Amino acid sequence: MTETAFDDTVVIEGGHVLTPDFEVREADVLIDRAAGVVLDVDDDLDGDETLDATDSLVMPGLVNAHTHVAMTLLRGYADDKPLDSWLQEDIWPVEAELTPEDIRVGTELGLVEFITNGITGFADSYFEVPEIAAATEESGLRANLCHAFISVGKDDEGARADAQEGLDIAREFDGAADGRITTALMPHSLTTVETEYLEEFVPQAREAGVPLHFHANETENEVGPIVDDHGVRPLEYADDLGMLTEDDFLAHCVHVDETEIDLLAETGASVIHCPASNMKLASGIAPIQEMLDAGVNVGLGTDGAASNNDLDLFDEIRDAAMLGKLARGDARDVAAESAVRMATEGSASAIGLPVGELEAGGVADIAVVDFNAPHLTPVHDYVSHLAYAVRGSDVRHTICDGEILMEDREVKTLDEATIREQASEHAADLVARAE
Amino acid sequence: MTETAFDDTVVIEGGHVLTPDFEVREADVLIDRAAGVVLDVDDDLDGDETLDATDSLVMPGLVNAHTHVAMTLLRGYADDKPLDSWLQEDIWPVEAELTPEDIRVGTELGLVEFITNGITGFADSYFEVPEIAAATEESGLRANLCHAFISVGKDDEGARADAQEGLDIAREFDGAADGRITTALMPHSLTTVETEYLEEFVPQAREAGVPLHFHANETENEVGPIVDDHGVRPLEYADDLGMLTEDDFLAHCVHVDETEIDLLAETGASVIHCPASNMKLASGIAPIQEMLDAGVNVGLGTDGAASNNDLDLFDEIRDAAMLGKLARGDARDVAAESAVRMATEGSASAIGLPVGELEAGGVADIAVVDFNAPHLTPVHDYVSHLAYAVRGSDVRHTICDGEILMEDREVKTLDEATIREQASEHAADLVARAE
Repeated sequence: MTETAFDDTVVIEGGHVLTPDFEVREADVLIDRAAGVVLDVDDDLDGDETLDATDSLVMPGLVNAHTHVAMTLLRGYADDKPLDSWLQEDIWPVEAELTPEDIRVGTELGLVEFITNGITGFADSYFEVPEIAAATEESGLRANLCHAFISVGKDDEGARADAQEGLDIAREFDGAADGRITTALMPHSLTTVETEYLEEFVPQAREAGVPLHFHANETENEVGPIVDDHGVRPLEYADDLGMLTEDDFLAHCVHVDETEIDLLAETGASVIHCPASNMKLASGIAPIQEMLDAGVNVGLGTDGAASNNDLDLFDEIRDAAMLGKLARGDARDVAAESAVRMATEGSASAIGLPVGELEAGGVADIAVVDFNAPHLTPVHDYVSHLAYAVRGSDVRHTICDGEILMEDREVKTLDEATIREQASEHAADLVARAE
Repeated sequence: MTETAFDDTVVIEGGHVLTPDFEVREADVLIDRAAGVVLDVDDDLDGDETLDATDSLVMPGLVNAHTHVAMTLLRGYADDKPLDSWLQEDIWPVEAELTPEDIRVGTELGLVEFITNGITGFADSYFEVPEIAAATEESGLRANLCHAFISVGKDDEGARADAQEGLDIAREFDGAADGRITTALMPHSLTTVETEYLEEFVPQAREAGVPLHFHANETENEVGPIVDDHGVRPLEYADDLGMLTEDDFLAHCVHVDETEIDLLAETGASVIHCPASNMKLASGIAPIQEMLDAGVNVGLGTDGAASNNDLDLFDEIRDAAMLGKLARGDARDVAAESAVRMATEGSASAIGLPVGELEAGGVADIAVVDFNAPHLTPVHDYVSHLAYAVRGSDVRHTICDGEILMEDREVKTLDEATIREQASEHAADLVARAE
């Protein structure tokens, strides 16, 4: 056993453990809270404190690799509309009214939801990032944060100022919250940021040592204009601008062709699959099995709560497996293990978080899932249940960086009741202002 | 207020009520336990007992209109395989080993799951129906039950005996459990029961006054052979055999054309949409919005737990809305209200259960959904949340026929812990025998 301060260890006791090679075995897990690492995975371990894991599976925390967390305030505000009219008629008019306080409260609500669903890390893109960073620091979660910038519809000064804010935010917050926060530069998408600003700011992201996070090929409407203007597919255009490296991650990629999948595989850029959002906005089905076969790293994201409408990544695991089968009419595609790996190591690797493998030396980012429930009985296969039957409400304890964020469904780092009350008030006021 | 025995009323107090026209208003709901009916929906009602509904939505119980409930024992036993090989290599060899005791325990487990998910009625098709009926009676739920019969692969004597058992069961159990159990005749599907047996037994179902429940057009493989043999589409063939009336309900109907949709609308036969099973087995997407537009009554079903892998009908509501949008690439299709109506009045009407409308005189089949949760905050629209964010674990109380089946998440009519333990043992033994 690794040496440690003996008053600061926790043993997760009596459960089954999902190992890095996706075997499941009975074992205790000993973690060092201060160092935030797993010290040992073995039988009969002792620690200063104990978390009960009877009838439970101890697994790496889930990572939500593409979200707009403060959009919880707009959960259920407008449904059943296509992306363009949903944004223009409903979402953008309300977002124009958002105050920094709204963003703070909406973020806190989303972070409570993450913690209750076993999510230990996330990648967010929105605005008022200092508020999001402060809430993240308080929550104990890990995150990659960015300010999304847009040039279309702005004059040069406005466009440049927005991009500069994105760059400044990326520089300022990278390494915040004792290193739990990293950052990215987010040109919103390939059709909402014009070429000159990509040419100017992408190299500055490289100099700052931060990855790119952007929306790509979400709808057919994002493909045609680029083909028309540049004579190449969107991801070829992005590659020509130096926007595809192994540090970068692209949300959606629903409408990609073989050439683009090959390009993702060659460059090592990751795709963040958001199946629920892609269904709800009728964007289409991303060719995930083709990507996996080509060697592309794929993570999972909920997208914002307004197009989902919750932040339960177990839904996305199920959706990814289910839609993967529909995509080519083959029930073997996107099998349970593939889908669960996307939500854990796929997402973590995509957004640059340490991957929470449950072995000595790994980070202590952990979800403990209670299998003591009728819908998880019997257990022929733990991984099958994770993909097809577990829901966020089955998560019993959530741990990030060694800190217990939720114990027996009680969130420890944020005040759930107060946040829910404030969020309801802010949401009602916000909508009243916008309407 | 209707006259009642004053020591047998319950008031569901302090919640919001989903009315038959899908408005939501603050009101109490008074029910008569003995009569199993709603006495009143109004402000400040008094009853002998109280169920708290603070922060909750009181809605009609969900109806799972196509399932094989005992298949809970095979939950997660075999995944990620196409329908044919999944049945032939995995499911049928295990089902051949099922004992009546297995069926009883598997059914009890499924019924516990139904109750915890706010499901108050269901339509089942399997075998060993007396065991299923006994468990249903004990549970307090409503059901339409049937013995599925098959002729393909059997000699005439075997085929006729199986169909006769289906008919005998339908006659024997219709009206059981104080009328909470009704029955159907189930020819398994149009390709697994040959024409002569349909010609012989369908008229006998009519004489017995029981509806038909059968699988139809689930995969492309069920369409081609009928077109080849009979020169018409499967539902035209079924109609020619007198199998489509307003009492009948057809599971799946994934691969139906316009002619068949018109036929369903004209005859009044109902479709039971099973979106999760259709995804998991890569069967395809049923054209639900086209059916609704044509005036077809559509209900929702989970199918068996082995192709789902849970029995949470809130998943199917969400799946129906989500897949409805993907089917034609239109985010307006299968809107939230349509999906929720399918799971309540659509399903109930399809399988011949009384529809639980929350108004005086309606049956007291009720689910109380707790909205006091981060993933259901804020509430801009209750119906949106029912479709896109509520999960079965949010159900707080379940009532059927006036009886409280679950109160504050505790199942009252079945012993959840014992059933779970027995189900785990039976499932392990069953698989050991089959392998």
